[in-house]
Amino acid sequence: MEHQRFGHTILLTVPPGEEVVQALNEVAEIYHISLAEVSGIGGVDQVKLGFYQLDTQEYLEQDYEGTFEMLSLMGNITLKDGEIFGHYHGQFADTSADVFGGHLLASRVFATAELFIRDLGGAIDRSEDPETGIEVIAFEE
Amino acid sequence: MEHQRFGHTILLTVPPGEEVVQALNEVAEIYHISLAEVSGIGGVDQVKLGFYQLDTQEYLEQDYEGTFEMLSLMGNITLKDGEIFGHYHGQFADTSADVFGGHLLASRVFATAELFIRDLGGAIDRSEDPETGIEVIAFEE
Amino acid sequence: MEHQRFGHTILLTVPPGEEVVQALNEVAEIYHISLAEVSGIGGVDQVKLGFYQLDTQEYLEQDYEGTFEMLSLMGNITLKDGEIFGHYHGQFADTSADVFGGHLLASRVFATAELFIRDLGGAIDRSEDPETGIEVIAFEE
Repeated sequence: MEHQRFGHTILLTVPPGEEVVQALNEVAEIYHISLAEVSGIGGVDQVKLGFYQLDTQEYLEQDYEGTFEMLSLMGNITLKDGEIFGHYHGQFADTSADVFGGHLLASRVFATAELFIRDLGGAIDRSEDPETGIEVIAFEE
Repeated sequence: MEHQRFGHTILLTVPPGEEVVQALNEVAEIYHISLAEVSGIGGVDQVKLGFYQLDTQEYLEQDYEGTFEMLSLMGNITLKDGEIFGHYHGQFADTSADVFGGHLLASRVFATAELFIRDLGGAIDRSEDPETGIEVIAFEE
Repeated sequence: MEHQRFGHTILLTVPPGEEVVQALNEVAEIYHISLAEVSGIGGVDQVKLGFYQLDTQEYLEQDYEGTFEMLSLMGNITLKDGEIFGHYHGQFADTSADVFGGHLLASRVFATAELFIRDLGGAIDRSEDPETGIEVIAFEE
């Protein structure tokens, strides 16, 4: 991966064979991000989505292989117990322009991925919502 | 809902049972937003979309119920007759990763919604395009 | 098209009958953009997508006609040989809320398009990746 900072925004590119979510989280660590907005596009050949099950409070994982345009990666970076916590949703099109998407766990680049991390200069933590089991954003009181 | 401002950007979270579009517009009012870019993700169980009919110049409303990831909410906040006017498009995936979307009128949170409102520091009004009946952005002359 | 700059961000609207990608690139030229993040929504009646073929290293073009909400246009503006180079992915819904999308080559407005170009104040060039034939972002060494 390669990255460069322009003001409050980091441009990140991910080369073929590398994984986007891991790249985002690594770059967030390099620049000591504790609150950021994330967006990006790319071309990928493996996607892992997670579907949250309210009853079991776990993500059901689903894998996809093919030639996909990553139409939109949207989400944010916060902290959880002092560690980088990325929350990303992804949408992908196959070669018929059909779109699928969900909570993004991983996606491997075959062409390139071009992402923006906009550092908001603040720090936001997460804590588990006892009701849903989801790690939700916890504003300071 | 909870919200906090970081520089020009407001982070907004919407808890289970609350509605996203209303939350966005309420927060826009609190911070006196008159031009902003909006984006966000979440998990919702009710969605109301509107499909514009050029012939009747009205939105045909369509309701969806289920367990949906809100993959992307994208849009903007401007003013119309001095009031907050949110224009949002939304995309949603069901538990099979199938995606649907449209002009977003409402979506109720079941898990969380995490949104960014980026205040551009300007003011933009809307006025009705007599041709299409759509409230379009009106730049000052 | 109409456009106005607010700080680092340009708001661009595209009227009925005009084409979005061309409008974006024209505005980028007007404001001398050499690195920007782009996002937007709209209503369009013609869409041209490109599907990259790794074997031929060419985009296979596909045209769509109908009444579509442009749910998300996401991408970036950089330079290629000193010229504006827009890289955009688009997602569109028909009147049944079914979504399709891909690498966006063109889309013609029937209602309006409302776009943000966020100027990052830097300059990024592209060069062809000999492996894939794709014009990838080239950071300075």
